[in-house]
Amino acid sequence: MIKQHVKVIKVGGKIVEEEDSLKDFLELFSTIPGHKILVHGGGRSATKIAKLMGVETTMVEGRRITDAAMLNVVVMVYGGLVNKQIVAKLQAKGINALGITGTDMNLIRAEKRPVKDIDYGYVGDVTKVDVSVLTNLIKEDVTVVIAPLTHDGNGQMLNTNADTIAAEVAKALAKVFDVELIYCFEKSGVLYDAEDDNSVIPIITPSSFEELIEKKIVQGGMIPKLNNAVDAVLSGVNEVRITKASNLNNDLKGTKFNLLID
Amino acid sequence: MIKQHVKVIKVGGKIVEEEDSLKDFLELFSTIPGHKILVHGGGRSATKIAKLMGVETTMVEGRRITDAAMLNVVVMVYGGLVNKQIVAKLQAKGINALGITGTDMNLIRAEKRPVKDIDYGYVGDVTKVDVSVLTNLIKEDVTVVIAPLTHDGNGQMLNTNADTIAAEVAKALAKVFDVELIYCFEKSGVLYDAEDDNSVIPIITPSSFEELIEKKIVQGGMIPKLNNAVDAVLSGVNEVRITKASNLNNDLKGTKFNLLID
Repeated sequence: MIKQHVKVIKVGGKIVEEEDSLKDFLELFSTIPGHKILVHGGGRSATKIAKLMGVETTMVEGRRITDAAMLNVVVMVYGGLVNKQIVAKLQAKGINALGITGTDMNLIRAEKRPVKDIDYGYVGDVTKVDVSVLTNLIKEDVTVVIAPLTHDGNGQMLNTNADTIAAEVAKALAKVFDVELIYCFEKSGVLYDAEDDNSVIPIITPSSFEELIEKKIVQGGMIPKLNNAVDAVLSGVNEVRITKASNLNNDLKGTKFNLLID
Repeated sequence: MIKQHVKVIKVGGKIVEEEDSLKDFLELFSTIPGHKILVHGGGRSATKIAKLMGVETTMVEGRRITDAAMLNVVVMVYGGLVNKQIVAKLQAKGINALGITGTDMNLIRAEKRPVKDIDYGYVGDVTKVDVSVLTNLIKEDVTVVIAPLTHDGNGQMLNTNADTIAAEVAKALAKVFDVELIYCFEKSGVLYDAEDDNSVIPIITPSSFEELIEKKIVQGGMIPKLNNAVDAVLSGVNEVRITKASNLNNDLKGTKFNLLID
């Protein structure tokens, strides 16, 4: 049996938090044919609203330290404000959107990250995605919009990295569907030269990824980000593409991760 | 064909916004057998968080004036914070909860309230409930938790009274199910004497309701509240009960609205 195609699209906070860029993005998103799932961030809004509420934001290596007060902020901002604004705008385009977190219908279980050098607080590492939840909704032609929040099964919500959620959701779906995972990026793709937006690396395979790290073409915070992509293709996701949001609809643009030439 | 039974339960902010009372409530809620839907408020948290964010709360006859800044607050608080805390705690009890707003899956359409004497801002009056959304979820044994927010179909979220949402959802479900609507109340029911919690009126029918208003036993802000209940039984809801949250599970407690002796 031929597997149906599903696109999992992750879009960062910067694009969904500003009215104009969100409008442009959803315009493109809504023209994508077939089944699709949207995973969004919202960090900038969380930081802004935390500040208004007198909650201090602490980031360590790009990750948010999430104490009880900050957890309330991200649950409100990711699960409420950002998620529902996207859903309302998709509904206006006739797309039957449903905004959820990983807690809803027990979609994504996680465990609180163990404290080693750093105590990240209420941050979750994904342990299980219940793909049947998504399969049922896809069958009903519902477009699921996922906020980057999970739960531990004991009543505790957990803040979880949106890139990771997109990868885990894509991996779980790959058991049932032919899955493409697209990360919308500020740059045109993974670049040979960070200063030159025309130097896009067209294809990365698991082994060429190792080389790129050795040669320090990929470094720092990019390593865990791209690790999600490599991990996804190694776990059955057909293809991962990292591209500028404005090239979302153009399959030829951006950096593709696959197993083709390994 | 015998209709399946569904309970629609509305619980106010005060109960769901405090950890202890929420715990007690969900304990009772989770023991209710059969299909159930929960509609919640969250006004106290909204007022508190609005204040922290420097957004002023203005109430007119118990209704929140919802300008753009306040709309963001209620979307965050109702759709995010309160809704997801309930969902996480229900999941911990093995109840397959899904937290949504009226915007998700186009469940509840509303129109922005026309400006007459008062401009309520982004407040919605319900125009349509899509019962098929709930029917499908009930079939899958999903317990839907509804935050009191709707949309206009053109991308605009609207703040909507939770009592009204509960009544409209119950009325829409009554076409397919045998529906009981329960309003959890701070008092034991509708009282003959507001000062005496033992003076519960056991049954109210549409005609006895008129009498209660004439005799000023029911007055002020109680009239629109109870109008929702009367309207529901006149629109096919089998029974409406107003009761103390702690008596949620006791069918004999509280005030019942029905058509029996009309």
